[in-house]
Amino acid sequence: MLTFVGLGLHDERSVTVAGRRAIRDADRVFAEFYTSRLVGATLPDLEAFHGVDVEVRGRAGVEDDPEAVLSAAEVGDVVFATAGDAMVSTTHVDLRLRAEARGIETRLVHGPSAATAAAGLTGLQNYRFGKAVTLPFPHAHGGGDVPGSVVDSVAANRDRGLHTLVYLDIEVDPAERRRRGDDRTDDEPAFMTADAAAGLLAGVDGWTDRLGVAVARAGSPDPVVAADALGALADRSFGPPLHLLVLPGDLHHVEADALRTLADAPDALVDAALA
Amino acid sequence: MLTFVGLGLHDERSVTVAGRRAIRDADRVFAEFYTSRLVGATLPDLEAFHGVDVEVRGRAGVEDDPEAVLSAAEVGDVVFATAGDAMVSTTHVDLRLRAEARGIETRLVHGPSAATAAAGLTGLQNYRFGKAVTLPFPHAHGGGDVPGSVVDSVAANRDRGLHTLVYLDIEVDPAERRRRGDDRTDDEPAFMTADAAAGLLAGVDGWTDRLGVAVARAGSPDPVVAADALGALADRSFGPPLHLLVLPGDLHHVEADALRTLADAPDALVDAALA
Repeated sequence: MLTFVGLGLHDERSVTVAGRRAIRDADRVFAEFYTSRLVGATLPDLEAFHGVDVEVRGRAGVEDDPEAVLSAAEVGDVVFATAGDAMVSTTHVDLRLRAEARGIETRLVHGPSAATAAAGLTGLQNYRFGKAVTLPFPHAHGGGDVPGSVVDSVAANRDRGLHTLVYLDIEVDPAERRRRGDDRTDDEPAFMTADAAAGLLAGVDGWTDRLGVAVARAGSPDPVVAADALGALADRSFGPPLHLLVLPGDLHHVEADALRTLADAPDALVDAALA
Repeated sequence: MLTFVGLGLHDERSVTVAGRRAIRDADRVFAEFYTSRLVGATLPDLEAFHGVDVEVRGRAGVEDDPEAVLSAAEVGDVVFATAGDAMVSTTHVDLRLRAEARGIETRLVHGPSAATAAAGLTGLQNYRFGKAVTLPFPHAHGGGDVPGSVVDSVAANRDRGLHTLVYLDIEVDPAERRRRGDDRTDDEPAFMTADAAAGLLAGVDGWTDRLGVAVARAGSPDPVVAADALGALADRSFGPPLHLLVLPGDLHHVEADALRTLADAPDALVDAALA
């Protein structure tokens, strides 16, 4: 049996009670933290809380060499844990399909996700979001500062009055990080900040004065939600990771009130976005 | 202090460890179950698990008369609990804004949501979903079987190759239910089933042979995920609630494999949807 458990958004207590039970009952517990992170808990925190050893797999250890996970799941109860909800990334789906192909039973234990947390924290309505996008570090793609596909998706959402959730890049490979001049000696990933992302997006023609909402540390006890023009958000800072950014489309009146009250949005920008 | 806690998807163990602590530590715990439901736990189950009394508020008790919740939160630690993630509905945002206006501190403890669970269970990628829609009972709106706004949203998503998550109506008012001829004497809500929804959608011009994916009991230990033409799904049944439906757009190859493996999708329909 292979059980995919979503660990949720922040620390070792962001997992569900059902997820905790699955982890405690497992013969072996694997985890990956290259698609997302629990920034409020270290690996020892997680192991101590659950009373288990957690075997962390890097991208190569999941995608190129899934054998350790699969062979363990053939003979025992194995948990594969990830931050956020279970099964958010293609790499997890691929692992699940490999397991099913070998006749291994699979199941999911869901966890809280940044996708709905961002909607909840900003007061923007979940069903008024269009397609989400990920903003990569500029060095990670060939084009200019913002990939054309990101600009196109935001524009297509706006044409329908819809909001866009912008996930921000995480670079987990320290070698790659150092190659581009980030010479910290620890192995902490490089997290794109909401201010850096706002700066990139403000550089798109005509976007500087557009309303954006920075969301920092969704799911933690001290989230920050701040709405302002993208050009202004670029000059602020929002503390430790993880960050994400929301680009609102048209606002309903409760959404407008929420952005004013919860995110200190400037009246002029909110009024201009009212549907 | 007013803490909004998402109870998650299925039963009393779908809440996070952090959410459980917030509930246990609260002076009073309110909940509403008219926007969604925990179908795997009764109110006594919930109260016994958490060791607290839960005061359930109907729509009128939240929207027209929020005073009980707000005045309690002015003098003590109050939890307002809902199924799924916290703050998914306008009615919750409204309550939060009323609290903030009275100087009551508010916070959210997130829970798993059907939005990301549906993506995970089907193997369809979260970032390839467009705007979600809700399919209402036909008697609940003025037009034909499927509101034009639903048809338009699905079509606009498909034009961009995107999937659509279709939430299915829940009718909680037993009086209204009986008015339209559902003469059960208990007060169980009427849940729209995925087969009924598929039947309604199959009636849209040209949609009978389109691929749909029924998802039943997301977040429970026995979810069902079944892909077929909408006309064929309409003739099947998927067991107890809650159900929802996904209408795929273009499929990437891992998504196609997932629908074949996890949802038993017919090859011809999957091949036709490959991007």
